Amino acid sequence: MTSKELFEQIKIKKSFLCIGLDTDIQKIPPFLLDTADPIFAFNKEIIDATHSFAVAYKPNLAFYESMGVNGWNSLEKTVNYIRFKYPDLFIIADAKRGDIGNTSALYARAFFDTMNFDAVTVAPYMGEDSVKPFLIYVDKWVILLALTSNKGASDFQFINENEEYLFEKVIKKSMEWGNKENMMYVVGATKAEMLTKIRKIIPDHFLLIPGVGAQGGNLAEVAVNGMNNQCGLLVNSSRQIIYASSEENFAEKAKSAAEEVQKEMEMLLKARGLCC
Amino acid sequence: MTSKELFEQIKIKKSFLCIGLDTDIQKIPPFLLDTADPIFAFNKEIIDATHSFAVAYKPNLAFYESMGVNGWNSLEKTVNYIRFKYPDLFIIADAKRGDIGNTSALYARAFFDTMNFDAVTVAPYMGEDSVKPFLIYVDKWVILLALTSNKGASDFQFINENEEYLFEKVIKKSMEWGNKENMMYVVGATKAEMLTKIRKIIPDHFLLIPGVGAQGGNLAEVAVNGMNNQCGLLVNSSRQIIYASSEENFAEKAKSAAEEVQKEMEMLLKARGLCC
Repeated sequence: MTSKELFEQIKIKKSFLCIGLDTDIQKIPPFLLDTADPIFAFNKEIIDATHSFAVAYKPNLAFYESMGVNGWNSLEKTVNYIRFKYPDLFIIADAKRGDIGNTSALYARAFFDTMNFDAVTVAPYMGEDSVKPFLIYVDKWVILLALTSNKGASDFQFINENEEYLFEKVIKKSMEWGNKENMMYVVGATKAEMLTKIRKIIPDHFLLIPGVGAQGGNLAEVAVNGMNNQCGLLVNSSRQIIYASSEENFAEKAKSAAEEVQKEMEMLLKARGLCC
Repeated sequence: MTSKELFEQIKIKKSFLCIGLDTDIQKIPPFLLDTADPIFAFNKEIIDATHSFAVAYKPNLAFYESMGVNGWNSLEKTVNYIRFKYPDLFIIADAKRGDIGNTSALYARAFFDTMNFDAVTVAPYMGEDSVKPFLIYVDKWVILLALTSNKGASDFQFINENEEYLFEKVIKKSMEWGNKENMMYVVGATKAEMLTKIRKIIPDHFLLIPGVGAQGGNLAEVAVNGMNNQCGLLVNSSRQIIYASSEENFAEKAKSAAEEVQKEMEMLLKARGLCC
């Protein structure tokens, strides 16, 4: 999917919501445990109920890997289900991969060829050759970790050399490897004041913003500081939507939770003149 | 496995060799493609042929993930095979994971509970809460990326703040989270001169050294600069051993290649008085 196509979807749905499929066998409604594939059954119902309010879904790989072969199977089924039934959705593998060149090439094969994801989150620590193998795929995306939303972000990401933080160096250096048509960046919403700083470096790139909701970020603040004239934002919400209820009505409750976020996003897009 | 038990194995085998199972369906001997599970068939033969010369095996997750569900299945079978047949071997998931706390906890569940790995490689970019969930498992190990062996290592790992490189800060900071009984570090052999610097910070920790062989490091140099009185080294070799031949005799050739490395390691251990 191109950035233009993604923006089209944002205008159609009046939403820049990404729903995180952090599907944990220990948290899904117990009655689903009787089905053949509880993880997929849960995801399918969540997707069917919420797809009108979201432009992207983001399975978090750890949750599937924790189930071993069965989890990997549920993941493949989930991606295929979205692709087949809702082809306009953008699908992100939240995998935070990154290794030496020949190994990153195999991760790229895993997420873009073997499975049909649109994007994969990548960790920058190993530098250029760990990122570039993902960038040779047409209309696929690297979403590079820049500034994360967790407490540990302060351990290394703010290391300062010549008046520049590590996360700024990561963004600047990576602009030599890719561009706004194949790279996005993870920017934690808990550091909304840093968005202004980041937008000065990359005014046109899409940003994936985790941390709105459970992790404490503020959506309106993110929009004010981070939105550009193609929206340029995908804001993720996981637990707050998918675990809105643990009863039989979980999908209906997830739908309400997603719609609530979408309504706020619609207001923010209108305020910026990006939808009518 | 404890560091003491690992050192015992090093003395028994007269080897600190780790064999990287970077098993690529496109590189294994073609005749194996007729078997039900070619990846596992290859690994099994490699392990049976080389286990006397190695103390550790390191499946590289990317290679398995690139095969989807089937690859994950081959990986689980490989780990189970080693556990059952060669229980004294140390098994490393070369996965380079790392995410916010609740997600890293699920990666830990994947590699230590669902599969029975001894250690997992972890990327440090996201800081403390991305690493700590792996450290609560008894006799399991985090192998944290410090200084990697690839070209891209120079992009960020040498960023300097207050006369200290990022990779040094990663080591020092992480010593607040774990200790020499649950943390090792990845240190690229192509930067052997840096080993002296690193050994001043962590004289007693085990180091996992990639990059000897195909990536250009020198084993004797690594031993001189990096060995401590518990050996303190696991040196990895992958392609040079497992792809020593692509003919029917591949396992035999892998055995010879492993034995050759082991013989050099035995000399280096003897020179240090660590085996007789």
